Order: sequence, then structure tokens, then C-alpha cells
Amino acid sequence: MVRWLESAGGTDTGTPSPDGSPVVAAADPGRVHTEGRVARAIVEDARDSVATLFGTRSRQVVFTSGGTEAVSAAIWGMTRSQPGRPVLMAGVEHSSVRDTSQRLAPVLPLEVDRHGRIDPSAVAETVERCAATAGPAALVHCQAANHEVGTVQPVSEVVDACHRRGAAVHVDGCAYAGHLPLAFDELGADLLSVSAHKFGGPPGIGALIVRRGLRLDPLLVGGEQERARRAGLENVPAIIGFGAAAAALTGPGVLEAEAAAARRRTGRLLEAATAVEGVHAVGDPDVRVPHIVCVTIDGVEAEPVLLGLDQSGIAAHSGSSCSSESLAPSPVLEAMGVDAERSLRLSVGWSTTDDDVDAFVSVFGAVVARLRDLAS
Amino acid sequence: MVRWLESAGGTDTGTPSPDGSPVVAAADPGRVHTEGRVARAIVEDARDSVATLFGTRSRQVVFTSGGTEAVSAAIWGMTRSQPGRPVLMAGVEHSSVRDTSQRLAPVLPLEVDRHGRIDPSAVAETVERCAATAGPAALVHCQAANHEVGTVQPVSEVVDACHRRGAAVHVDGCAYAGHLPLAFDELGADLLSVSAHKFGGPPGIGALIVRRGLRLDPLLVGGEQERARRAGLENVPAIIGFGAAAAALTGPGVLEAEAAAARRRTGRLLEAATAVEGVHAVGDPDVRVPHIVCVTIDGVEAEPVLLGLDQSGIAAHSGSSCSSESLAPSPVLEAMGVDAERSLRLSVGWSTTDDDVDAFVSVFGAVVARLRDLAS
Repeated sequence: MVRWLESAGGTDTGTPSPDGSPVVAAADPGRVHTEGRVARAIVEDARDSVATLFGTRSRQVVFTSGGTEAVSAAIWGMTRSQPGRPVLMAGVEHSSVRDTSQRLAPVLPLEVDRHGRIDPSAVAETVERCAATAGPAALVHCQAANHEVGTVQPVSEVVDACHRRGAAVHVDGCAYAGHLPLAFDELGADLLSVSAHKFGGPPGIGALIVRRGLRLDPLLVGGEQERARRAGLENVPAIIGFGAAAAALTGPGVLEAEAAAARRRTGRLLEAATAVEGVHAVGDPDVRVPHIVCVTIDGVEAEPVLLGLDQSGIAAHSGSSCSSESLAPSPVLEAMGVDAERSLRLSVGWSTTDDDVDAFVSVFGAVVARLRDLAS
Repeated sequence: MVRWLESAGGTDTGTPSPDGSPVVAAADPGRVHTEGRVARAIVEDARDSVATLFGTRSRQVVFTSGGTEAVSAAIWGMTRSQPGRPVLMAGVEHSSVRDTSQRLAPVLPLEVDRHGRIDPSAVAETVERCAATAGPAALVHCQAANHEVGTVQPVSEVVDACHRRGAAVHVDGCAYAGHLPLAFDELGADLLSVSAHKFGGPPGIGALIVRRGLRLDPLLVGGEQERARRAGLENVPAIIGFGAAAAALTGPGVLEAEAAAARRRTGRLLEAATAVEGVHAVGDPDVRVPHIVCVTIDGVEAEPVLLGLDQSGIAAHSGSSCSSESLAPSPVLEAMGVDAERSLRLSVGWSTTDDDVDAFVSVFGAVVARLRDLAS
């Protein structure tokens, strides 16, 4: 038993640690006492698991309170060291990328096609035009996949186009990480944001992965945690969960098997949804993340459809993760030139079963038909 | 059972919710589906508990990822709306307050006495001098209690002195909240930062409490969570823990009883420590938070003392929560004019027992004596 003469420490969870001693999940990993050192070892094990899943070294991984903080830290760091320089960004980026960029830098738009896909040659051209007019870009954003429609972006080509022209790239990997293989060091991007809860980890934890050699002014200062890259007591319990989720997806064929199961399920969802008249797939139906599909529904709003599905015990969602169910039109659909204000996003996770998919298939048509009857 | 067609949702914890249905602690409270609405209700219950403990209305409470983020959000918001205006701050403030202020605004120092106590009349004078020379202050910091030596600050007097002169006050309550009664609305401060893990809650959660009517540009943007005051998925499990810790301290005499027990224990620690020759109390021995005492030890460094105590199973700490065990001199001691580079902070929490205190009392003298023998 440990004698706690530290007010911040001390919940003995009873869980055995790697060395067999009891784990103190709420101990401060910055302390020299035994419990602090045990907590430190646990945090570093989790960091190793996260680094392994994302194909990088542990010391490139900076834990944050989630995807939004990771995105914010990336943009803050890059614009802080290059004040006034523009940020390049497509309209399909997540609201955290868009809003944070817009308040910290002038923003130049990048074009997308009707699937919401960023065009690498348009990126190359915009980077050059930016350099020639407004000065070198502080940062180019390229999401790994779209959070609302699932379209996978040509990240490698965008990174290549940017690096040839001296521009740094931030990849918002929140909708992609943990669902398809992602090798950060090989990709060569400068920054990658990931969120644990998007692939089975707990909420309240994410990471900013920073290219070797890139030094960023931290978003949160006033503590030496995370090698002085993110101040504040480490969220040890959430970090443990993040590491466990990453470890569960590591190993030959594991991610591929998860992805195949998710693709099969979302394929069935998409097929059943688009079999209903006036329901249209949006986003690339093929080159997409396996777990997200998206449809628009003629003649009815998304919210009553969600409520109708909810009455049948189905939890689905309209639009982005961070937009709540706001009534504003989706900027993603707008950027794609889709003639609809709102969409229905259907996604599957580690806890989704075939029965869940069956339930959707059996009720979706009736929910839409009932709403259309009401409206007519 | 719920059918999850949402990748981010869905850990059924089996815990019963207030209405008897199973709780989905990882569900997104921003969703219209049943699980989202249950998560929302749980978050709002926790917010009510936190608001009650700190004497304010629920809607003044903005959940953050911890004390550091709360502090950072307070300073960002106030300096963002008043660019170039000075921030006033004593040298005893926590490093998160100091470092964040210094990079966002010109900083004017506030004097402290030998106990590290801020002088309200010096604050009044500095606010006036600031207004007359550099322009109106963007913000005045006044910690509720010092995190390293425990001295309680005259917050009410400082708030009064500032408000009479039109200056806003941020109270860093991290070392005080949950240990002594704190009534935010009555106090009249503009902003209050608190951290859950400092009083029995989990790590990774805190709050910025914002005066009614004060609008702040948020630190994290890109989502409508927390009434658009803090973007990013709510950390529901940690919020539940924060609410539970707050609720456990609410009720007639509860906090007072906890405080009396802590004061008795830290009193014994201080008495035993200062009974050793060349060990001196720092900070105000009387007007202090009940759970923290602090000593300096002539002739030995703090770190070997910590290691010596650790060998006896005692987890203690040198300096601030966020300084790790860094070898730099303590800015708090420096600001107080104490002739020592490092101190030994002894604090007690909800898990500390009288046996823990006995253990310290019985070994401390021997640990110090052994180290002094080694040094001589």
C-alpha cells in the first residue's frame, strides 16, 4: 500500500500493472515516486501502441484531449511560427479545421470534385499561386477521409505536390485512422490528427502526430508534460484506453478484417437505402472508408428520419460529428455541389452487428414512406 | 439494445441511468437519438453538481480537459478581445497562468508578501498605474490558493479592488476548489478555473466558470458543444466522475468536515517536519488550504528526500503539479523571497489516512539525517 501525501494522486484501481504491482491509474506520471513511475510506464506503453498502429516512432506522438485539440494544436503551431501566411484548405474539411484556420490565418480554398475529393494538381497550382501572390503557405490541410461522406482523399499525392513546393501538410485523420492502414512516417506528412473514440477508444483522448524534426509552439503551455509539447496532467485512464484500442487493431490482417466486415455492412446499408426511390448516395461509393456511407433523401428532412430510425432502436446521424443536429446546411455537401441541404450519415463501428444492419434494412423504406405521406 | 449505425458511439456500460435505462457512456450527447439524449442528460446532471459545489448556475460551467485548458481558455478569450492590453499577475501564479499570459499579452507584476500573499492595495495601485500608462488591463489573475505552499489569497478583496477600477479578474481555483467553500456568483469574479482530479475526480476534466454575460472567444472552435464555448466531443465518462466528486462534497458540513480532517493531518505533518532541525515551513501556516503544507530543508536537495520517502512507501512531491521534478528553482519561492531553490510539498487527499501521516512522522527525520550524513 502506498501512503499518499499528494492531494492529486491516488486511486488504487487494483488492476495489475505490467510488472505485477497494483496500478495507480490516477497517479501523476511526472512524479519521482513509485506510483508516478508506474503511471509513466503505462503511458509510454500506450504511446508505443498508438505509434505502432500509425506507423511512426513513439516520440512523434503527442497525446491531446481529442481530435479537435489535435487539429487546433497543429494549426496554432504552424501559423504561430509563420504569422500572416495563408492556410490552404478544401471546403470539405471538418469544422474544427475550417474554423480554427479561418481565425488564425488568411485561408485559400482548394477545389474538390463531386465526390468531395481534393485534386492534387489543383493543390499544386494553388500552392504555387499562393507563393507568388500572398507568400509561402503556412500549411495545407488534406483530410485523410471525409467525415460526412466517407470519400478517401489522395493524401500521398497531395503531400508530394506540397512538399515539392515547400509547403507543409496537416492530415486530419480523425475519420480514417483505425479504419484503414495509415503509415505516418512513410506518408511523409508533417502533422496528423487522430481521435481515439472514432475507432473504439474512449472519448477525451486523441493525438497529434508530429514529423521528426518539426518543432511546434504548443497550444497548451505551463507544464513539461508530453516532452513540453502539451501542458496539463496526462489523462492516464483515457490514454490506457487509446493504447488498448490501437493494440487491438495491430497485427497481421486485423485492420483488414475489420475493414472488410465494415465495408460489407455499409455496402448493405447503402444498397438498402438507395433502393428507396429518391434516395441518393453521396461521396465516392468505392474509394471510401469502410465504415461510413452517406445518402440524401428527396422530400424529407434528415432529422425526422433520424427520429423515425430512433423509434426503431437505430442510432444514426446527420452531417458531421461536431455539427450536432444543427439546421444549417452542410458545408461539405455545399463544397461538393450536391443539391441537398442535409444528408443522412450511416456508419458502423466495432460494436455494430449484422442484426443492426438487418434492422435498418427492414425499417428504412417504411420510415421514409411515412414521412413522405405526412408531407404530402 | 440499441443498433449502432454510428462509428463514434456505443459502449454499453451496463450502468443504470437516472431513468433506469442502460447508460451509454460513450454516446455523443449532441445526437438526437435516444442514447445521445441519455448522455446529454447525464452530462447536464454532472454540470448541475459542479455548479452547485461552486455556487453558480449550470450554464456558467464550461467543461474543459482540465485546469490547464481552463486557464488557457480564460486568458485566450480575454486577451483575444482586447489585443495588446496588459495582464496583471503575481509571480506565485501557476506556470500555466504565467506562461499562457506571457505569450499572449504584456504582463505587469503584482507584489506578494513573504507568505506569497497578493496584496489587494498593491493590486489597486497597479491596476491604476496600468490604466494610466499602458492602457486598461485585459485581465488580472488572482489564484484562490497557492499550489505549492498553500497560502490562501484575499480573492474577494482583489476582485473588489479590480472591479472598482473596471478590471476583470480570473481566479485560478485549481489548488483551492473542493477543499474550501467557493461561491463563484457571490465572489463576483469574472472567470474561475477548476480541475477535478485535485479533489477526487478523474484526470482529464476541469471547468472554466464564466460570469453571466461575459462572452469569450473559445480556445477550441469547430463544434457547437458546451453552448459553442468549447468544441470537441464531450468527455462523458470523465464528466460523470467530475460530477460525482462534486456531489460527494456537497451538503451541510461535508466540505467543512473534509477540511477539518485534512487540516489536522497536514498540521501533524508540518509539526513533525519542522521539529527536524533546519526544516522550515513556507507559506502561511494558518491562512492556507487545509490539504497543503510546504517546507524547505537546509543542506539537502528535495529529490533525494522524495526518493527516501518513496523507499518508505510515501508518495510526496517537490514544487508545483506541472513542474514535474524539474531542477529549475521554484518561481513561487523566488517570488516569495524565500532563500531556497526547492521545497517539499506535502499534501493530503480523500484517500490519505492517519496511518499515512504516522508513517511520514516516523521516517522523515531519519531520511533527512541519512542524507545529511551522506553529504557531510
